[in-house]
Amino acid sequence: MSTNNNSAYVPGLEGIIGAQTAISHVDGANGRLIYQGYVIADLAQEMSFEEVAFLLWQGRLPNRQELDGLTGELAANRDLTQAATIALDALPSDTDPMDVLRSVVSVQGVEHRLAKPTAPLAIHATASFPTILAKFYRRQLGLEPVKPRRELGHAANYLWMMTGKESSPDIVQALNTYLVLLADHGMNASTFTARVIASTESDLTSALVGAIGALKGPAHGGAPSAVIEQLDLIGAAPDAEAYMRDMRKRKEKFMGFGHRVYRVYDPRAKILKAMCERMNPTFYKLASRVEEIALSILHEEHPERPQSVNVEFYSAGVLQAIGLPKEYFTPTFACARVAGWSAHVLEQAAHNRIIRPQSEYIGPEPRKPVPLAERG
Amino acid sequence: MSTNNNSAYVPGLEGIIGAQTAISHVDGANGRLIYQGYVIADLAQEMSFEEVAFLLWQGRLPNRQELDGLTGELAANRDLTQAATIALDALPSDTDPMDVLRSVVSVQGVEHRLAKPTAPLAIHATASFPTILAKFYRRQLGLEPVKPRRELGHAANYLWMMTGKESSPDIVQALNTYLVLLADHGMNASTFTARVIASTESDLTSALVGAIGALKGPAHGGAPSAVIEQLDLIGAAPDAEAYMRDMRKRKEKFMGFGHRVYRVYDPRAKILKAMCERMNPTFYKLASRVEEIALSILHEEHPERPQSVNVEFYSAGVLQAIGLPKEYFTPTFACARVAGWSAHVLEQAAHNRIIRPQSEYIGPEPRKPVPLAERG
Repeated sequence: MSTNNNSAYVPGLEGIIGAQTAISHVDGANGRLIYQGYVIADLAQEMSFEEVAFLLWQGRLPNRQELDGLTGELAANRDLTQAATIALDALPSDTDPMDVLRSVVSVQGVEHRLAKPTAPLAIHATASFPTILAKFYRRQLGLEPVKPRRELGHAANYLWMMTGKESSPDIVQALNTYLVLLADHGMNASTFTARVIASTESDLTSALVGAIGALKGPAHGGAPSAVIEQLDLIGAAPDAEAYMRDMRKRKEKFMGFGHRVYRVYDPRAKILKAMCERMNPTFYKLASRVEEIALSILHEEHPERPQSVNVEFYSAGVLQAIGLPKEYFTPTFACARVAGWSAHVLEQAAHNRIIRPQSEYIGPEPRKPVPLAERG
Repeated sequence: MSTNNNSAYVPGLEGIIGAQTAISHVDGANGRLIYQGYVIADLAQEMSFEEVAFLLWQGRLPNRQELDGLTGELAANRDLTQAATIALDALPSDTDPMDVLRSVVSVQGVEHRLAKPTAPLAIHATASFPTILAKFYRRQLGLEPVKPRRELGHAANYLWMMTGKESSPDIVQALNTYLVLLADHGMNASTFTARVIASTESDLTSALVGAIGALKGPAHGGAPSAVIEQLDLIGAAPDAEAYMRDMRKRKEKFMGFGHRVYRVYDPRAKILKAMCERMNPTFYKLASRVEEIALSILHEEHPERPQSVNVEFYSAGVLQAIGLPKEYFTPTFACARVAGWSAHVLEQAAHNRIIRPQSEYIGPEPRKPVPLAERG
């Protein structure tokens, strides 16, 4: 049965342009990630997450006064609503932290109903993610929650609420860099989800909740803990290369390799790899060896395909060095990406057209139903 | 700055095929809606919602034993988890029922974590939607919740839990027909959202929660109560036509008109219109007159465009006749569509490829950032 158009179906919409955006650009050919006209390498070491969030939302870097204003707004909006607190405390303590985030962000947002997405609402949402995660994490450990501290920046306060201790400036800086690196990345599946939801004129919370659900998938953001698990297995093997060749015979995937867009080294992975070498030498020693073997095996199998590690591979080592438990790797990714998601929602709302592709029907031709009594 | 491909950007992905599906087909040219090879007119009056849900999930109509099995499974899974009950009771009583649904479906699903989508999970989710809504509705009224009754079908039990009374067979049948008519509709924005989320290998709950957020948008499912509100205004005017012509001068939209796909009368609207005439004569008298005037004005404005009422227009009159409050029109739409959403998630999971379009960068060319101290 024919549909109403003539274009061919492209699985996964690969190569189809889903949106125009000024927020970020994955320049895969040149290995560059650009946020609103700045390459990531120029932002990652210099800028606070707050500065970069402002950039993503407003399209330009803040001056000192604007940055102080945003920092203050973020710090002032870290508390959860009463309903969100009750919902969080009601969740079983073995709940997947991504499900905690999806559920509590949803409850936290109900007060905004169908409000049009705005920058202040983006600030409120971004401020709440670390509080939700830290509160749940401490409950899992049987510990009292730690109240947010207004004078701490976004990265420092997240670690404070998780651990109840002040982290060293190095560790805070590392988390800040991670948050900046992961804050946006063109039209990935979760960002696209957020834009599709926003395109129906729905609210920011609905878009973010959908995006969290998409990020949870192992084919998107749900795999960094799998990198650690796989490295543990390979590291325990008497011969890493032999073990990895056996893995391929069993059709097992190497975790943390391959990306649809980059044809050269992912610029984020490059920065994270250097951070790993400095902060997490044990991880680095094994991981860099595994990277080498994996690339060599993948190249033997498909010499025509460019292969490289993706952002998840060395993220795992950095987040481990920061002291975050591996179940919180993907939720911490969400703490970064909420800045990008909300920027895309603001952009979508400003130039909206409902995102509604067609489908191609591949079911049977219409026929009359057989009455229930006559069905075999 | 060029992107990595050559295809042109199509706003809203209009005409782009987002998925292949056997679940349903909107045959806009012929005004037919097809579910798995059956036209909607053959299903709407004859089949129970349970039968149609089976059809959507399994690709064929059930025999008696299979239908009894499904009916029993749905009836057995209507209770909420303890966490979901607590979260629901924690929500402020003026919460938008769509936000209630988004939040409580999320909490209800945490026990399944990252489970692969299956038909039993689709049954569990579908069974829970009416319970969530009815429980919240009665709390808003200050009434005790009404326990589900196992011997009642899906439509009858929803009305029972909402009202605490047994509805007449006519009313139950009308709701059943509404649920069948709205159960699926090709690649609309919420169904597409569910498929994008599922394409990351995320779970059914995440996909449904995203879809609820998309359906909430006024450009998708969030408008049927607006039809009632607009009809009330028009009905109160001394001259409906003069009032409606004034509306257009003020650039106001007629609610419930226009659809991207149908070029002839929406087959669902046709059935709902006939139901309105029978069940809700007051609404019908005004609505059919407004339809006539609106089509005539829209035709004068754009003689080249085919115009017709969409499914929301007469849905409003049917749901009103059934006795549902207008804040529950869109959530009741979700009670129908959850069958379609979950069918699409099952189909996506069975033939998966991550849905990840590109974006086209329209931001500035990269330049060096100005240091904070030097920014004006």
